[in-house]
Amino acid sequence: MVDQPSSAILLVSCPDQPGLVAAITQFIFQHQGNILHLDQHVDQQENVFFMRVEWDMVGFELSRDAVAQAFQPIGDRYQMHWRLHFSDERLKMVLFVSKQAHALYDILSRWQSGEFAVDIPMIISNHADLESVAKQFDIPFHMISVKGDKKEAEQAQLDLLDRIQPDFIVLARYMQIVSDAFIQHYENRIINIHHSFLPAFIGARPYHQAYARGVKIIGATSHYVTADLDAGPIIEQDVARVTHKDSVRDMIRKGQDLEKTVLSRAVYYHLQHRVLVYHNKTVVFA
Amino acid sequence: MVDQPSSAILLVSCPDQPGLVAAITQFIFQHQGNILHLDQHVDQQENVFFMRVEWDMVGFELSRDAVAQAFQPIGDRYQMHWRLHFSDERLKMVLFVSKQAHALYDILSRWQSGEFAVDIPMIISNHADLESVAKQFDIPFHMISVKGDKKEAEQAQLDLLDRIQPDFIVLARYMQIVSDAFIQHYENRIINIHHSFLPAFIGARPYHQAYARGVKIIGATSHYVTADLDAGPIIEQDVARVTHKDSVRDMIRKGQDLEKTVLSRAVYYHLQHRVLVYHNKTVVFA
Amino acid sequence: MVDQPSSAILLVSCPDQPGLVAAITQFIFQHQGNILHLDQHVDQQENVFFMRVEWDMVGFELSRDAVAQAFQPIGDRYQMHWRLHFSDERLKMVLFVSKQAHALYDILSRWQSGEFAVDIPMIISNHADLESVAKQFDIPFHMISVKGDKKEAEQAQLDLLDRIQPDFIVLARYMQIVSDAFIQHYENRIINIHHSFLPAFIGARPYHQAYARGVKIIGATSHYVTADLDAGPIIEQDVARVTHKDSVRDMIRKGQDLEKTVLSRAVYYHLQHRVLVYHNKTVVFA
Amino acid sequence: MVDQPSSAILLVSCPDQPGLVAAITQFIFQHQGNILHLDQHVDQQENVFFMRVEWDMVGFELSRDAVAQAFQPIGDRYQMHWRLHFSDERLKMVLFVSKQAHALYDILSRWQSGEFAVDIPMIISNHADLESVAKQFDIPFHMISVKGDKKEAEQAQLDLLDRIQPDFIVLARYMQIVSDAFIQHYENRIINIHHSFLPAFIGARPYHQAYARGVKIIGATSHYVTADLDAGPIIEQDVARVTHKDSVRDMIRKGQDLEKTVLSRAVYYHLQHRVLVYHNKTVVFA
Repeated sequence: MVDQPSSAILLVSCPDQPGLVAAITQFIFQHQGNILHLDQHVDQQENVFFMRVEWDMVGFELSRDAVAQAFQPIGDRYQMHWRLHFSDERLKMVLFVSKQAHALYDILSRWQSGEFAVDIPMIISNHADLESVAKQFDIPFHMISVKGDKKEAEQAQLDLLDRIQPDFIVLARYMQIVSDAFIQHYENRIINIHHSFLPAFIGARPYHQAYARGVKIIGATSHYVTADLDAGPIIEQDVARVTHKDSVRDMIRKGQDLEKTVLSRAVYYHLQHRVLVYHNKTVVFA
Repeated sequence: MVDQPSSAILLVSCPDQPGLVAAITQFIFQHQGNILHLDQHVDQQENVFFMRVEWDMVGFELSRDAVAQAFQPIGDRYQMHWRLHFSDERLKMVLFVSKQAHALYDILSRWQSGEFAVDIPMIISNHADLESVAKQFDIPFHMISVKGDKKEAEQAQLDLLDRIQPDFIVLARYMQIVSDAFIQHYENRIINIHHSFLPAFIGARPYHQAYARGVKIIGATSHYVTADLDAGPIIEQDVARVTHKDSVRDMIRKGQDLEKTVLSRAVYYHLQHRVLVYHNKTVVFA
Repeated sequence: MVDQPSSAILLVSCPDQPGLVAAITQFIFQHQGNILHLDQHVDQQENVFFMRVEWDMVGFELSRDAVAQAFQPIGDRYQMHWRLHFSDERLKMVLFVSKQAHALYDILSRWQSGEFAVDIPMIISNHADLESVAKQFDIPFHMISVKGDKKEAEQAQLDLLDRIQPDFIVLARYMQIVSDAFIQHYENRIINIHHSFLPAFIGARPYHQAYARGVKIIGATSHYVTADLDAGPIIEQDVARVTHKDSVRDMIRKGQDLEKTVLSRAVYYHLQHRVLVYHNKTVVFA
Repeated sequence: MVDQPSSAILLVSCPDQPGLVAAITQFIFQHQGNILHLDQHVDQQENVFFMRVEWDMVGFELSRDAVAQAFQPIGDRYQMHWRLHFSDERLKMVLFVSKQAHALYDILSRWQSGEFAVDIPMIISNHADLESVAKQFDIPFHMISVKGDKKEAEQAQLDLLDRIQPDFIVLARYMQIVSDAFIQHYENRIINIHHSFLPAFIGARPYHQAYARGVKIIGATSHYVTADLDAGPIIEQDVARVTHKDSVRDMIRKGQDLEKTVLSRAVYYHLQHRVLVYHNKTVVFA
């Protein structure tokens, strides 16, 4: 939140070995840092170590510009992948939408109330339907049809994005498959919401599939987009009960509540730098 | 429950048309029956009507032997599939188990406390591991190995069942595929528990599959067994949250709680004559 | 939904006795009505019968103006309380809000997408904070401060409402206690959302209370407003898990998702005429 | 689990200050310990630090007898409350029961399957009803009536317990209030299950209270017993949906599933040394 004093957030993954926590926390301590939150995880099967540690920058001996350089030797010694963030940075998020408004409204109202401390410089859509919503919130709206040449449309999208240089992209029920080329520009930085509890009901019309199969529970899944359709690393899922009384229309209605909630939680975790990706899975330090 | 006054339960399905509820409830009323519970459902897409109605036999004009004959003309007029039960009938349930005890214990403790008013004349297993549990509850236990000739083993099972004539069979983590021939003897009367939220993770080792996919929710599904593996009509499902912290071993532990709860709920619905099957789906008047 | 063909919805409650369902469904059938949905319930303890039945007006013999008169004799014979609605009626709903936007946004976005087929002629607030949201959706906004003379403020509210004659009122985190006099104008027609799983944590600052008590689950409750604070008939509740990690601030954030979802579900049930109130409880034919 | 290699588990709480994690993890590292799990939490409001760290004893330089002495100086320096456990220790748990079997069966079947690696030297009850269950599992059963002089009965219980010296006590639906004197012998070591989502419905007949209030969700709560009735530190809670259809009898049936699940989870956390108590709340490193 905006009015909090600034803190530093360090995300680490590396091969597991003894002494990792000691080395990292010793670094923070020797520079007078007080740890606010610390989460760590070891994947025993893959022998990978993960950590997210957040410490108070008030009273910390190093200026924020000097932290990375000071940490570098530790990172090198243990072959760490590591990223450093500060809690008062504002990320840039671009939204892709299509015709349905529920997920878009949910994100924008959280943004307006300050729950999502993020900049939203642009909304991109393949239809004009939600332009009025963008206007309600004073956000530039760009309509790029994908009915014709898909490559051309995608290039137009990339050109728009290049101007903005967003930190990440959210597909808020965009309903279009994005190409591998596009994904490579934003690896592990495109968040999608799929309207089923993956891996069940991949692809089109999952509520119709769920209705046909006669399930008693429907779900929604937020994941990072990869080249395989609906098969990227899962960030968050949730479910709701249905019965024989629920028509496909009812499932869609109940499912929309899941979709917006699950997507917004995934965006929240991403904004808070709580997600680490490896082996097509996520560690979410919720 | 045993100490309740007896009631009649009528289950109906037929092509939908105006006047069905009126015809059935008029029948009950004209014979002085007081309706205790009534649930109905119309599948608008398939144009099928379903009803479960339960009425007090105290004060009902017809003896229980006379009800079916009296209702027959109504059933014929509307081309109904219908079944009549009485709440104080005791069904016969045979349990199939293998090595894991959790679902078996859950069923047997409900049976012993009177929650399941059912007879359990026999437990059949392909391993000897759970014989001691059967003994704890004084239930005959039959070990039939399936390592050798599968057909022979199945015939031995069918011979045992023939002596008992069970109303239905519960596969309480039996872990073996039963043949089409076997299933045909007990159509829509074999209840299985699968340790995933179907249709995700069909087949073997679903927790390992779930772990590999990195899902945030695991589940269990109870369904009637059909010729297609794990594809029969779903009776009940439930789920539990998991995180990156949960190893396969943790998923198995959490999942066992789901399995026993979901299976016992399905058995309860079946015992209460609350389940109607059509088009590989169920109507559960819970 | 707007584009559905019109149906009639009859809500009934009365002392239980044999023949009620037969009488009502016979009435529908003899006038050529096809039942779409039928739910009934008998409170065995209180001996009260409840029913909601919905039938197709297409092909129904009686015009919508003639239905009530034709049904009157049946209602009289069985001492029924009954109400008749048509699915294409549009109710008038007035929203009361204060400073928090999440529940308001959730309702307005459902309204704009057509999920809530209702008219919202007015938003009333005791603060100016959400005027901009009202403007976003082109709804008249009236600020009536309650800091001074409460009676005067309430009279001003009632005067505004009198002009509109709303069918029901929704307190979307209004955070003010309304007087008995006010409530009597809209008995069982004021829906409130309380930010706890009632009856736990009645009154002010329930998340602070929940934090202090160290609960592992928080909740939200939607209920009709009565003279007793937070003690009216409950329409809907839901919960979310919390842990020791969750500060009061986190509980508020998680709780807001519950509040908006639970309130919107209650509004949906009310709009669909699915709620019957008796003895400070509800029957919700969900 | 029994077949795992042994690990050490250190639980710490103390006033928060910089350097705590570094000091503890440095201690483990310098003696060649590899950390398997580490959880820490800071209650920012109360300025208290909590940690649970588990490391492999294979390859650890200190013998298990030497660990405590070696850690003592660190504990002293930071004014820590700390406890050291080893994963292969077997705790002694005594069960108190009354007439209902469901929670008892659930615990005993987990014990027999090895999920609960614990010794159960004794079951104490105020009724004879469950003696047969104790016999099924070959556990000594002691009936001590509490109908007469309560003090005398309690002394008889304490005498029995003195012979055993249990590590903790589980009230598996014991349904009797235990005295302050009794509690003081086992502070934060008596686990109770209450059949409501506390703090709602404290005291007797919570399902009847829930039915009368018309709630849409029922729950169960496991907590450590303190002098205040149903007001001790909450370890675990869970809930289930109910509707107007559910009678008190149905709520009891659904609630029993919650009770046994919630109690068994609390026992599991306690056995795994995952629970820290402070200020009438718990930190559960689940």
